[in-house]
Amino acid sequence: MTAPTSPVTATPTLRDAPDLAAFADRIRSGDRAALARAITFAESRRADRQAFARALVQELLPLTGKAIRVGVTGVPGVGKSTTIDTLGSRLTAAGHTVAVLAVDPSSTRTGGSILGDKTRMQRLAMDRRAYVRPSPSAGTLGGVAAKTRESMLLAEAAGFDVILVETVGIGQSETTVSDMTDVFLVLMLPGAGDELQGIKKGVLEIADIIAVNKADGDGASRAKAAAAEYAGALRILSGQGGAWTPEVLTVSGLADEGLDRLWARVEACRDARAKAGELARRRAAQQVRWMWTMVEARFRERLADDPRLAARVPTLEGDVASGALAPTVAADEIARVLGF
Amino acid sequence: MTAPTSPVTATPTLRDAPDLAAFADRIRSGDRAALARAITFAESRRADRQAFARALVQELLPLTGKAIRVGVTGVPGVGKSTTIDTLGSRLTAAGHTVAVLAVDPSSTRTGGSILGDKTRMQRLAMDRRAYVRPSPSAGTLGGVAAKTRESMLLAEAAGFDVILVETVGIGQSETTVSDMTDVFLVLMLPGAGDELQGIKKGVLEIADIIAVNKADGDGASRAKAAAAEYAGALRILSGQGGAWTPEVLTVSGLADEGLDRLWARVEACRDARAKAGELARRRAAQQVRWMWTMVEARFRERLADDPRLAARVPTLEGDVASGALAPTVAADEIARVLGF
Repeated sequence: MTAPTSPVTATPTLRDAPDLAAFADRIRSGDRAALARAITFAESRRADRQAFARALVQELLPLTGKAIRVGVTGVPGVGKSTTIDTLGSRLTAAGHTVAVLAVDPSSTRTGGSILGDKTRMQRLAMDRRAYVRPSPSAGTLGGVAAKTRESMLLAEAAGFDVILVETVGIGQSETTVSDMTDVFLVLMLPGAGDELQGIKKGVLEIADIIAVNKADGDGASRAKAAAAEYAGALRILSGQGGAWTPEVLTVSGLADEGLDRLWARVEACRDARAKAGELARRRAAQQVRWMWTMVEARFRERLADDPRLAARVPTLEGDVASGALAPTVAADEIARVLGF
Repeated sequence: MTAPTSPVTATPTLRDAPDLAAFADRIRSGDRAALARAITFAESRRADRQAFARALVQELLPLTGKAIRVGVTGVPGVGKSTTIDTLGSRLTAAGHTVAVLAVDPSSTRTGGSILGDKTRMQRLAMDRRAYVRPSPSAGTLGGVAAKTRESMLLAEAAGFDVILVETVGIGQSETTVSDMTDVFLVLMLPGAGDELQGIKKGVLEIADIIAVNKADGDGASRAKAAAAEYAGALRILSGQGGAWTPEVLTVSGLADEGLDRLWARVEACRDARAKAGELARRRAAQQVRWMWTMVEARFRERLADDPRLAARVPTLEGDVASGALAPTVAADEIARVLGF
């Protein structure tokens, strides 16, 4: 066996792209078209384009990490796009540059995401200090999330100082987004008592801030009541230590109410974590987990690419599921075929 | 490449053990000593003993799956042992046979577990219809959990119809125990308002039944107040469908109050899931996840055993954590060395 080569020995080149150094310079200078193209490379199914994007991310890595990374989730109908549009416009008006990325593994199914995101955020889409990027349109959650992580780093290198990562909250996507951001914001619908919608399992556990939306007009009192209930639930869950205790507040994305306070609390969460050293630890741990997630993805590709295993795994899974085969015995066989 | 061999071609033999068929017969007949010895083999660090246990589990697999599998967790001091002792004794008096297993990855650190478990459950330890097995005394949570899963199957083959899997609730152990049981029971201390202890993150998400313990004497009213608060929190979380809606009740393990009702609700949960087909699906999914967990464990061993990787991984993790190396680039290198 030969010694592992240095990870970036060869500079990947693309027939249809400029050289890496020149491309990196364009992104460093904030060239929007170069950023968009780099993200397209990251999202490509072509191996050479992916490799190019990977090398680009590595090249630009020293410029990353300066933005505040905020995850935003909420059920369809909660007013996520309107709220992000209003909040983002406030932030650019205050001098920030805002990139909005999306993690939505379902976007191929629901369709319309590519046009949809831009039309849903009309002000931000026209805002020269903002960049709205729709969800990668294909792949498993792991794949989509990996692309969004690369997009985030590229946007940071291009100078954006606020990254909003939106997810519609299907399956594991909230956890995934929480694991790539500094602060996790959950938007909820107003309502109380029987009307109170159930919080998806796991979301309360990772929420740093719950914002009850549509706290305007008739909704204001219902939003307040809902906020009180959520605060009660969070209080019971707040046994874990840490620099930040989750908070609940009310906003109206449509009426543009409470968004300054919301952003102040987002920054307060980030600052509290930074001061305690948690932010750096959190980001370091996120990066290392991302690395292992990628190794696992490769491992799964290896499983799928091995014709013997690809043919054998469904039978093994079936026998294990039906109780005919002990899971340990099946695992032995898979490991043996893989040469472990 | 050769075709994969049948998983159980060779019958492992041990110098110091009877042959597999005879051993399996003894377990089938409910021989307590044989069960204890089989579990010791499963927990052994010796590869030949582990292989023997694995083959034994495979041989006995048709006899497994008939017990109700109940996970029990709670913070130290909540009265877990007392409650299990009392509940278990009631169950054996009612004609059940009860095996108590433990998942406690910390047992090597805290020490005393091996003697401790038996002395903590004095009635059950003397009960001929019960079998109390302390936590495996070494290994990572994954390893301990795998051993407990095998122990559970062996106990089922020996005829036990109630399996209680206890965990002290450190780190991920509740999730692990929830993923090997049919019903997950969380014991809580009484208290209300400021006194109310925080529920560990994630536990509320997997609890099927929360039992507020020590609802006796002066504690009764405090336990009721705590139960009301937990019920409120559960209600907010109950957005997920499913055959069972989590419940909260109060018990006293010490004063033997409410345990019949508790067990009735445990059975109601199991029955509701069985009727809806969820129980079979849940168990099948648990088995398949267990298989993949074992494959991953082998994969991690492979990583640790490869001298180049063992030397290189800490550097890669450090460079990724510090932001010097892109996670995707590091993952590429690991995958390349592993031959993926």
